[in-house]
Amino acid sequence: MADFSNIISHLQTYYPFWDRLNEREKEAFTSCSSLRNCPKGTFIHSERDECLGILLVLSGQVRVYIQSDEGREATLFRLGRGDICTLSASCMIDEITFDILMEAAEDSQLFVTPVCGMRRIMKDNIYAENFIYKRSTEELSEVIWSMSQMLFQSFDKRLAAWLEDERRSTGSPVIATTHDQIAKNLGSAREVVSRMLKYFEREGYVSLSRGAVTIINPRGLAALID
Amino acid sequence: MADFSNIISHLQTYYPFWDRLNEREKEAFTSCSSLRNCPKGTFIHSERDECLGILLVLSGQVRVYIQSDEGREATLFRLGRGDICTLSASCMIDEITFDILMEAAEDSQLFVTPVCGMRRIMKDNIYAENFIYKRSTEELSEVIWSMSQMLFQSFDKRLAAWLEDERRSTGSPVIATTHDQIAKNLGSAREVVSRMLKYFEREGYVSLSRGAVTIINPRGLAALID
Repeated sequence: MADFSNIISHLQTYYPFWDRLNEREKEAFTSCSSLRNCPKGTFIHSERDECLGILLVLSGQVRVYIQSDEGREATLFRLGRGDICTLSASCMIDEITFDILMEAAEDSQLFVTPVCGMRRIMKDNIYAENFIYKRSTEELSEVIWSMSQMLFQSFDKRLAAWLEDERRSTGSPVIATTHDQIAKNLGSAREVVSRMLKYFEREGYVSLSRGAVTIINPRGLAALID
Repeated sequence: MADFSNIISHLQTYYPFWDRLNEREKEAFTSCSSLRNCPKGTFIHSERDECLGILLVLSGQVRVYIQSDEGREATLFRLGRGDICTLSASCMIDEITFDILMEAAEDSQLFVTPVCGMRRIMKDNIYAENFIYKRSTEELSEVIWSMSQMLFQSFDKRLAAWLEDERRSTGSPVIATTHDQIAKNLGSAREVVSRMLKYFEREGYVSLSRGAVTIINPRGLAALID
């Protein structure tokens, strides 16, 4: 596991605005930050009555989801090693008007920079502010992609059904094909197929390699179809 | 209707980064931009094979929506006078990985700045870039709010049902109440009630005034409940 001072000395590799901060801002950022070790299944939240802050995943995996009033859950995206989450700092971003929930999907180590360390920097430093909004745009776009899948549920089913058909007809979990060929088979676009396959990979249904899709969790895939 | 040179001379009121642009950048921005008059019902799109660009609504209303492969539609948000849309410039924002559709919900006049006028500026000018990401964050957050309503459909129905009950029991379309009182009645938070009432107002179901909610389209509200 990484130790705190080691992370601090590598912050510029994670935060592109790091070299644009002055010494006072760097000090404010680091003095407020802390390492958190979250065993698998831990609900990740702030100990204070505010949002968690900006989160850098050093190891493991974090699942980001929302919950309805009735307790229904929807996974929005997952964060892996080196990923930064800014939606978890929504209380300092006026433009974000909804809250996410997070849990450790694997044993995870996180570097958390709470609001106290970031709010002032974001206000004073255009590069830090821009990083936050740029990363938020990226995360929100992922959220919308996931939500539109749930709303319009169709292509994930069609792709899962096609992969399952191939597996049955060839008797092999290794499907030798390109994303372009799949797109042609399903009357879709290569980009759409690639994105959905990457989603399937993140969810552990398939593994991807050049010219092949390997089904590693046929049950998970079958559950999508039903 | 506004004329082009008049708009140009007021761009700093719409675009906060305007005064941060140099003369060359201002020239690139304006020389590429154009006014568009879109009668109600017009589908708003680029004439070239790329995304439309950044859009400023000078008058009227634009409905922003997505469509599934099967043609199902979902309204994401609406833009009114003075609103800027950056999601319509998604092709120049790498972080945005989905496309929106737009139509004029009323006769509308738009000031459109296509990719040619913005891509270079966004790359060179941190203030312009930050404006784009900030505004995108705001729009995407609205999109997610709308989508989660559709996914979890519950609070809109409950609020619509409550308003309808009040209307019937008092016999008046004017419901004298505060957002806080409604929240208490529905076991929700004031912010949630306010946001949903604003949504109802934009959809033309109610009009809002201090201490009162007036139902102006009871049929629309009833359709939500069913």
